[in-house]
Amino acid sequence: MEISKDHPRYRSLVTREHMGEMVREGIVAPTGLIAHGRGEAFDYLIGERTTTEAQGAERAAVALLMGAKRPVITVNGNAAALAAKGLADLARLTSSKLEVNLFHRSEERVQKVCDYLEEQGGIRVLGRVPDATLPHIASDRAKCTLEGIFSSDVVLIPLEDGDRAMALKKMGKKVIAIDLNPLSRTSLAADIAIVDELTRAVSGMLAFAKELRLDPKERERALASFNNHENLAITLEGICQNLRRRARSV
Amino acid sequence: MEISKDHPRYRSLVTREHMGEMVREGIVAPTGLIAHGRGEAFDYLIGERTTTEAQGAERAAVALLMGAKRPVITVNGNAAALAAKGLADLARLTSSKLEVNLFHRSEERVQKVCDYLEEQGGIRVLGRVPDATLPHIASDRAKCTLEGIFSSDVVLIPLEDGDRAMALKKMGKKVIAIDLNPLSRTSLAADIAIVDELTRAVSGMLAFAKELRLDPKERERALASFNNHENLAITLEGICQNLRRRARSV
Repeated sequence: MEISKDHPRYRSLVTREHMGEMVREGIVAPTGLIAHGRGEAFDYLIGERTTTEAQGAERAAVALLMGAKRPVITVNGNAAALAAKGLADLARLTSSKLEVNLFHRSEERVQKVCDYLEEQGGIRVLGRVPDATLPHIASDRAKCTLEGIFSSDVVLIPLEDGDRAMALKKMGKKVIAIDLNPLSRTSLAADIAIVDELTRAVSGMLAFAKELRLDPKERERALASFNNHENLAITLEGICQNLRRRARSV
Repeated sequence: MEISKDHPRYRSLVTREHMGEMVREGIVAPTGLIAHGRGEAFDYLIGERTTTEAQGAERAAVALLMGAKRPVITVNGNAAALAAKGLADLARLTSSKLEVNLFHRSEERVQKVCDYLEEQGGIRVLGRVPDATLPHIASDRAKCTLEGIFSSDVVLIPLEDGDRAMALKKMGKKVIAIDLNPLSRTSLAADIAIVDELTRAVSGMLAFAKELRLDPKERERALASFNNHENLAITLEGICQNLRRRARSV
């Protein structure tokens, strides 16, 4: 379908078409589109821009990844479809491993998402052969690799389900979420919740990684000044202010 | 996939699977799932319940349909997938015509949605053979029938795109929207915007239709006491209060 550039939601419609194409290619699960739509709505409420609070979270997250011993970035179908190249770059800049981890797991889709990530620059992507199981969680979603998620100390989980976020926390890992819903179980369980659209969050993090790479003192400061629940509360207040402002301008 | 009944979003996950199935059957367009997800997020913010404001809008909407000369209920793929039977019942109780009208139009899908609506109780569903065009709007979405949408005086548009809502308004029609986003162009353009999840809205409207059927005075009162922008503003204020309450209970 031809989308008119005048349409007020042009960018979101173009991304929709791309996500539809990614379903046809078998990267994104059909119901992954519903999750994408949920995110779209929250992004609309946030104002479709990276807030100051999200910037603080992105900076702290990069500092946490850079200070970790065994950092891992998990990637599901939606994350790969939206930001495979950026996530691969981020893994390289923060010396993190990449592991594919699906909500609707099928062997075929795991292979496809791993291959896609590697085509987009991901190095030795884990997840094709899971050899470990997360405790505290049922179903196929517990599957992971010993080398990657299971042994990690810090995990970045973009667009993750609440059950898995909480299971990772219970294992004692530091969890960084990228999630547009500031009240999701994932955002609340995380040590650092980045409430930002994935592609914007990743490009912000890449910039911060370049800045913080050679400055361990500044990395400490970024972490020390970050408080997740306080940050989420300010984000929520911002959403309310946006709603009220739009209501007034109606 | 087996969904655990303990999952906090059980009902929404079951609906997701149903919508995925409706994509496989060709009733819902793949990107219709994204629109569904957007709605889910707004419903979450509203509290997944019918607000007092939505009840007022549903009652006024039924009164408007019942007082109309040529009322039409439009149905797209998502609306059919979620509430075909309820919409067919509502059409009967309010003497409205049903017309299928798709955002991503294909002849095949129009046929399928029309057939599906008729299987679920819809009588003589219009839209298979469009013979009129809405002004003020480009693309395939302008197609409609002379007997239905084109000649209508009141149109109920569940889950409709803003462009079409505005085009219908410009033609001088009274527009009733069912849309979970209280700030969407559709909600703002409508004479009556029902900010409620579709299945809850339709079942509320069916109850009001039974109540108001024999009471034209009460129908007048329901309409006279309704103010769309005031109602939307109260809905928005409720969303803000929900967000703050949840933020406090974190």
